[in-house]
Amino acid sequence: MNTIRSQNRIAAVLVGVLAFTATIAHAADPLPSWNDGAAKKSIIAFVEKVTKRGSPDFVPAAERIATFDNDGTLWAEQPMYFQLFFALDRVKALAPQHPEWKDKEPFASILKGDVKVALAGGERALVEIFMATHAGMTTAEFQQIVKNWIATAKHPVTKRPFTEMVYQPMLELLTYLRANGFKTFIVSGGGIEFMRPWTEKVYGIPPEQVVGSSIKTKFEWRDGKPVLTRLPELNFIDDNVGKPVAINQHIGRRPIAAFGNSDGDLQMLQWTTADTGARFALIVHHTDAAREWAYDRQSSIGKLDKALDEARAKGWTVVDMKNDWKRIFVFEK
Amino acid sequence: MNTIRSQNRIAAVLVGVLAFTATIAHAADPLPSWNDGAAKKSIIAFVEKVTKRGSPDFVPAAERIATFDNDGTLWAEQPMYFQLFFALDRVKALAPQHPEWKDKEPFASILKGDVKVALAGGERALVEIFMATHAGMTTAEFQQIVKNWIATAKHPVTKRPFTEMVYQPMLELLTYLRANGFKTFIVSGGGIEFMRPWTEKVYGIPPEQVVGSSIKTKFEWRDGKPVLTRLPELNFIDDNVGKPVAINQHIGRRPIAAFGNSDGDLQMLQWTTADTGARFALIVHHTDAAREWAYDRQSSIGKLDKALDEARAKGWTVVDMKNDWKRIFVFEK
Repeated sequence: MNTIRSQNRIAAVLVGVLAFTATIAHAADPLPSWNDGAAKKSIIAFVEKVTKRGSPDFVPAAERIATFDNDGTLWAEQPMYFQLFFALDRVKALAPQHPEWKDKEPFASILKGDVKVALAGGERALVEIFMATHAGMTTAEFQQIVKNWIATAKHPVTKRPFTEMVYQPMLELLTYLRANGFKTFIVSGGGIEFMRPWTEKVYGIPPEQVVGSSIKTKFEWRDGKPVLTRLPELNFIDDNVGKPVAINQHIGRRPIAAFGNSDGDLQMLQWTTADTGARFALIVHHTDAAREWAYDRQSSIGKLDKALDEARAKGWTVVDMKNDWKRIFVFEK
Repeated sequence: MNTIRSQNRIAAVLVGVLAFTATIAHAADPLPSWNDGAAKKSIIAFVEKVTKRGSPDFVPAAERIATFDNDGTLWAEQPMYFQLFFALDRVKALAPQHPEWKDKEPFASILKGDVKVALAGGERALVEIFMATHAGMTTAEFQQIVKNWIATAKHPVTKRPFTEMVYQPMLELLTYLRANGFKTFIVSGGGIEFMRPWTEKVYGIPPEQVVGSSIKTKFEWRDGKPVLTRLPELNFIDDNVGKPVAINQHIGRRPIAAFGNSDGDLQMLQWTTADTGARFALIVHHTDAAREWAYDRQSSIGKLDKALDEARAKGWTVVDMKNDWKRIFVFEK
């Protein structure tokens, strides 16, 4: 072959390879666990319009920021936030070093197995539980504690590891968005350092794309090495009005898509959708008492009331778990 | 051609294309503005060992985090931090709305052009200047103010736009690291929202990879739209012991390479190099009074004293600007 013919052949082959790859990508359903319906259609329509070059809604890849709440949006949150199971397990594990806890609430009730009484102390009891179990060690030590717990702890109802109580349709959604150039972030009320040890493996979201609540840390020296010590002092609560603040602080640009399930996500959804250009907001509505849990306006965990009204008024996508999802948890066949 | 022959040909062509590309990449000097010397060699040796599969020092791409100080490391910082020029220009621009500033320090001296007297008020004067110019507007408004200023302001000595007073060798280093799978972050004492409007264009570093000092913001409603208002209240000082804290908070994993120029970067360099595995620390030493500035142990801006001693004791790379850099600023031919 002469050079020109050879070059033409290379070009033809490359074009053929690309066209073939595109055909495969188009043929496969990117969201197989989603029933065909309005929710699935709205997701695909949004992704297609913001990724189509020349479309008036086209968004450059660098600006395709998508933020996800975690509890109740990516994994379950009943009968209580999973991080609270972690905290209670830690109270039990640490009890031998704290003989005084036998006579001190909320610890005494936790050790007697009476969580309800322990939590009756409200926010103050919660803060005491969290500070006693989340502070006082280095960041590296805490990371290891979380890794050990998440690898072994089981959910009291399903008896499954907590990382298998992740929603399969949401995993598909994360993958679909990333395949379309989106950068996916978690923006959760949960502890930033409680999530980071496992989000990369479970969700494909690296630590630097995890935003959450935090306590303060301090740089100091221990045995000739620098460490960061976790202090029993709140730094930031990443919930409600805190979510847009944290998004601005950590990401520094406004998401074009946001995903939540409760009133704690409302401000994130408002912030995401208030700017010009194509925007997408989605709420996971827990409607399946048989396969998961059914709760919304009256629930103390994951209360969904104002955000549900606003979603309907503004035309945000509301996922009806019972009807929109073929499969709920990762562990289901 | 039959199918098998055709497939073989496709494979052969693709292998050829890849091999050719690899040859080009290998042949070009990734750091052309660096003189051949110990500093340049140490950078290339580090990058090659952490990216070589099978090497005992291999680091997976996801863990190739590199953090850069900004002032004095990526762009100049003399005769004073560039953000301070911005603040002083803002005082002048806002003066008509603040008739009381004529009789109130540090503003009165700034308006009379006597910056030295204004800054004689020390930290308290600085905080007053920063709060008066950096707070009181929405984040979107502040972003626009910074964009307008950075597009028009000129450095008093070189008369160049500040974004051209960026170090060409450091731009090449950023590009070289990214081409080798590194994720590059800024970790600066400068304002996070002062840097984000221009770092992507100038350094190729997106907003979500910029970490800096910050003031608090508040989510509220204005004219029926959600905004984040910048409050005159410090949130975080990202300097000295603050840098490892901020790295942990924003990135959530330890860098394997860090780059600074002053004692304010010392803890970041200590934190980066204290863990196991291949680690790299580099200090830009300002030694070129002719082409840039020469300063270190005695300087009030960018003081380099303890970190210089520690760099020598620990074998960190120290860049001698005068001898290691062929070209300093982007604007030089």
